[in-house]
Amino acid sequence: MKGKVFLVGAGPGDPELLTVKALRLLQSADVILHDDLISSEILELAPKTAHVRSVGKRCGHKKIHQEEINTLLIAYASFGLKVLRLKSGDPLLFGRAGEEIEALRRANVEVEVVPGVTSASASAAALGASLTQRNKASAVVFLTSHQAASRSPEWQTYIHSGATLAIYMPGSDYKGTADRLVAAGIRVETPCAIVSQASTRTQQIHRTTIQGLPDSPALPAPTILLVGEVFESANIDSRYVAGNIVPATDKASFSLPTLEVFADSQVFWGD
Amino acid sequence: MKGKVFLVGAGPGDPELLTVKALRLLQSADVILHDDLISSEILELAPKTAHVRSVGKRCGHKKIHQEEINTLLIAYASFGLKVLRLKSGDPLLFGRAGEEIEALRRANVEVEVVPGVTSASASAAALGASLTQRNKASAVVFLTSHQAASRSPEWQTYIHSGATLAIYMPGSDYKGTADRLVAAGIRVETPCAIVSQASTRTQQIHRTTIQGLPDSPALPAPTILLVGEVFESANIDSRYVAGNIVPATDKASFSLPTLEVFADSQVFWGD
Repeated sequence: MKGKVFLVGAGPGDPELLTVKALRLLQSADVILHDDLISSEILELAPKTAHVRSVGKRCGHKKIHQEEINTLLIAYASFGLKVLRLKSGDPLLFGRAGEEIEALRRANVEVEVVPGVTSASASAAALGASLTQRNKASAVVFLTSHQAASRSPEWQTYIHSGATLAIYMPGSDYKGTADRLVAAGIRVETPCAIVSQASTRTQQIHRTTIQGLPDSPALPAPTILLVGEVFESANIDSRYVAGNIVPATDKASFSLPTLEVFADSQVFWGD
Repeated sequence: MKGKVFLVGAGPGDPELLTVKALRLLQSADVILHDDLISSEILELAPKTAHVRSVGKRCGHKKIHQEEINTLLIAYASFGLKVLRLKSGDPLLFGRAGEEIEALRRANVEVEVVPGVTSASASAAALGASLTQRNKASAVVFLTSHQAASRSPEWQTYIHSGATLAIYMPGSDYKGTADRLVAAGIRVETPCAIVSQASTRTQQIHRTTIQGLPDSPALPAPTILLVGEVFESANIDSRYVAGNIVPATDKASFSLPTLEVFADSQVFWGD
């Protein structure tokens, strides 16, 4: 029997933002290798019999090397197991999924990618503001603070084009980020928002402008920095007043339903 | 009793790529107003008692004006109903969600946005290739063919930056698109892929290069055009040979499980 690896997006944090497919696979996996950012609420949905292991690499503290993760994935799958590689958000945006997929293909291990809801979508949903808007931002650029840190002409042009910027992993050096954005030509009045732990019960939102960004509080990771005219006050849920940190609104307490594992789910796992 | 509008992303097409939350709301809505692209498979998950209505505006054939949609949303919610506004993909990317949210806020109708899996994520998942990759593409730009059609310096810079391009609604004038990309300075060898009806049973993928793009077949809408070095052969699932159109692999037949409507779900609907 051959195993298979599913590279699955767990979404932004709220267990209800798992896809139905991700939930089904989570509930029938033999082995789950997950990033640090996957919440215990989500991991509790795994079968009691599953082997659940964190392979997180957080903020430079590399507890485990990428090569080791690749080796583990191949080893478990070669043993005939159903392996879930669970990543927060969408697995193909700013993860290192490409390297894992490549290693699995080289080892002739079947791999299937299950897309997920990315953090920028959840953050915009929290604000109630579109990432794109006619006559305001016809494009959106997803990038990381590493790229934002460069003074390349590309970066200047992203700003001049008026595209919305969704900066993943912005860190907490907001002054540095603001300085670089201003150096690249951004208007200091440009609205922005820091969204911390989007979609979870501990979500917090801080709205400001580029000018006010250096004085922004350091909110708990993971955060995302959204920048653009689409986030001007008129477009934003009135709870999110500029300068206020708004914690998550009360959510109804709920427990996820147990989905029946489909009778023919083994088709998905290979045989 | 006050109603509420949920602006919900239905994901790229596969009913299993609905989020658990979208499925729960779909199964408990009074009224569902949906885009043309929402499949019957998904609509069948609605309660028999729900009022289901298409408000699609497809390719310039405006069967219904945006103002009418706004009016309907407000009217149903004001009547105290649970209204689901169902959009394909993620509702805050290239929909006109901003206008609907604004109209609802002006009318003092509560609105909540539920993010979804966007088509670019599902298309990249089908190819098994990351949208971003270290040393290759550190950013991804989501744009529409309308923007791609411009010869603005921004467009040139997107190309020079090496960012991956996810072009939504690319139309079928591939020659025109390729000409403009080349005029903006793209390498003619740059890999690209047209993904039609991503994640569905009728998904088709055509891989080519910018040079080969004009000779590409017109595949059924909705399509997305992915462009970038991350889609070079070495990174792609070997089923997707350049020049071949690959239909969807067989999927197991399944029926979605019925989720219990949570006992306290009325908290979500307002009261």
